[in-house]
Amino acid sequence: MHAITIPEPGGPEALVWDEVPDPVPGEGEVLVEVVASAVNRADILQRQGFYNPPPGASPYPGLECSGRVIALGTGVSGWAVGDEVCALLSGGGYAEKVAVPAGQLLPVPDGTDLRRAAALPEVTCTVWSNVFMIAHLRPGETLLVHGGSSGIGTMAIQLARAAGARIAVTAGTKEKLDQCAELGADILINYRDQDFVAELKAATGGAGADVILDNMGAKYLDRNVQSLAVNGRLAIIGMQGGIKGELNIGALLGKRGAISATSLRARPLEEKAAIVAAVREHVWPLIADGHIRPVVDRELPMSEAAAAHRILEDSGHVGKVLLVAP
Amino acid sequence: MHAITIPEPGGPEALVWDEVPDPVPGEGEVLVEVVASAVNRADILQRQGFYNPPPGASPYPGLECSGRVIALGTGVSGWAVGDEVCALLSGGGYAEKVAVPAGQLLPVPDGTDLRRAAALPEVTCTVWSNVFMIAHLRPGETLLVHGGSSGIGTMAIQLARAAGARIAVTAGTKEKLDQCAELGADILINYRDQDFVAELKAATGGAGADVILDNMGAKYLDRNVQSLAVNGRLAIIGMQGGIKGELNIGALLGKRGAISATSLRARPLEEKAAIVAAVREHVWPLIADGHIRPVVDRELPMSEAAAAHRILEDSGHVGKVLLVAP
Repeated sequence: MHAITIPEPGGPEALVWDEVPDPVPGEGEVLVEVVASAVNRADILQRQGFYNPPPGASPYPGLECSGRVIALGTGVSGWAVGDEVCALLSGGGYAEKVAVPAGQLLPVPDGTDLRRAAALPEVTCTVWSNVFMIAHLRPGETLLVHGGSSGIGTMAIQLARAAGARIAVTAGTKEKLDQCAELGADILINYRDQDFVAELKAATGGAGADVILDNMGAKYLDRNVQSLAVNGRLAIIGMQGGIKGELNIGALLGKRGAISATSLRARPLEEKAAIVAAVREHVWPLIADGHIRPVVDRELPMSEAAAAHRILEDSGHVGKVLLVAP
Repeated sequence: MHAITIPEPGGPEALVWDEVPDPVPGEGEVLVEVVASAVNRADILQRQGFYNPPPGASPYPGLECSGRVIALGTGVSGWAVGDEVCALLSGGGYAEKVAVPAGQLLPVPDGTDLRRAAALPEVTCTVWSNVFMIAHLRPGETLLVHGGSSGIGTMAIQLARAAGARIAVTAGTKEKLDQCAELGADILINYRDQDFVAELKAATGGAGADVILDNMGAKYLDRNVQSLAVNGRLAIIGMQGGIKGELNIGALLGKRGAISATSLRARPLEEKAAIVAAVREHVWPLIADGHIRPVVDRELPMSEAAAAHRILEDSGHVGKVLLVAP
């Protein structure tokens, strides 16, 4: 088969569409013929050599895909050859075939075409596990989403709206904020020329955010703590603004606040399977009935993964960038 | 009545035993004739002028007491004049009488004398709310308790042992560590001449602590994150080592860790009542059947509160220091 390989870490040009051996499904795994994959920030870190795949994972990038089941490993039940699926991956989505633990497979939701289903696994699993399983966002609460127009952001807005929460977002252009508003965001903050702490406080009568979904890490740590409401929960899922930051414990304690920091990829199989099962139970029906849709910025041929990475690096997108297999 | 007042913030001598007006129980409150109170670190901060009572709270120090109900405000049910009780307070325990919201009263547990019951409310509510309600310590997990010989520490050890957890403690002398061991601590670390991160890792096969109960704040923040196990939870309840510290978000994310910071005193009535109810349900039976006991270092007359504060400031105690009303 063909896959995007990374012979040497580097810029987007480090991604090489090359012929590689077919993956073989192990015990409890399913072999999927990939129809599409989607680009995540973690793929860029992997390309740059900063985020090695966990032990046992495919060496190729790609944390999600859609496609068709073409073979079953031993000990798999509930799936059959020919099933149309999408999947949360530990790697290997930028390829024509990928072996997936059965617990990370999801059916293509009703009303979604097979290709666009590749835009769903990472964002739904990340948002559901952080905003709902860890931070327990409740109806009537306020969620602040940084990067509201990203793939994660566009899904967080929709899921929080479906949960009856009020949604604040930050983004860098008016166009992006408009698209966030269309998806259901109530409080729109342009981080380039507005102070998100002040804007959020003003829009919430001084209360702040009950939950914050953050991809910036250190750069926003202090301001995120300032933005938390009493009993607020900060869920960090990325460190685009750095790894080490000063934490004002006094401010956090004054709010009885909590901070979590997680990633999906490194979780053990059983935790991933539990998240995927929860997403199937809680999110899939919302997609099937039209409350939530995958937001796709554009689709590129998988062999042009380098161009897709440049789009993410330039933050020129809204929602997910798909890579379509040949 | 008499109470310990703080005419001017300062050292222990700032505490003055003085005549003051009797408190009047408001709606939903009970008037308690105090038999004993107990000293908490927060009292020292209040004495120094760094921790003002929340709005509506008594201006006198004292976050817990035991005594007898002598009057009921309107709208109180479930309690009667003459009941022997102990109570979680927002202040005012260093006094002959105190008005208490009924939701913060607890009966004196079977097997505990009325005076020593004053040692229970703060430590049981703090440990239960943090270690169990927030951090969800589970059987078989490892709890690291800093200041294992403090009032909080001695209760945390006993409650974690009763829950089937493994317990690591830090303390500053061999004598204190011996007393922690007697209460049920498994891993004893002298913070004066041992590195608690290395000792904890060595004793847990490299795994670290699933839950950490921390009173040091900034000074221990980085080492606490280093000490966390995968999926570990750091519960900060004090900042004796400073307010602002560097948080390594990358390290926290690598462990899928969480940090909470809370205090009891500032919580609204309904949250305090929920904690008190949980303590009555889960902790009181363990005291009644002898699994857990209040650890009392010594008892002083309430008018000698200054001497009691000096004992805490010198860290010369194990467990709680009681103040007995005249």
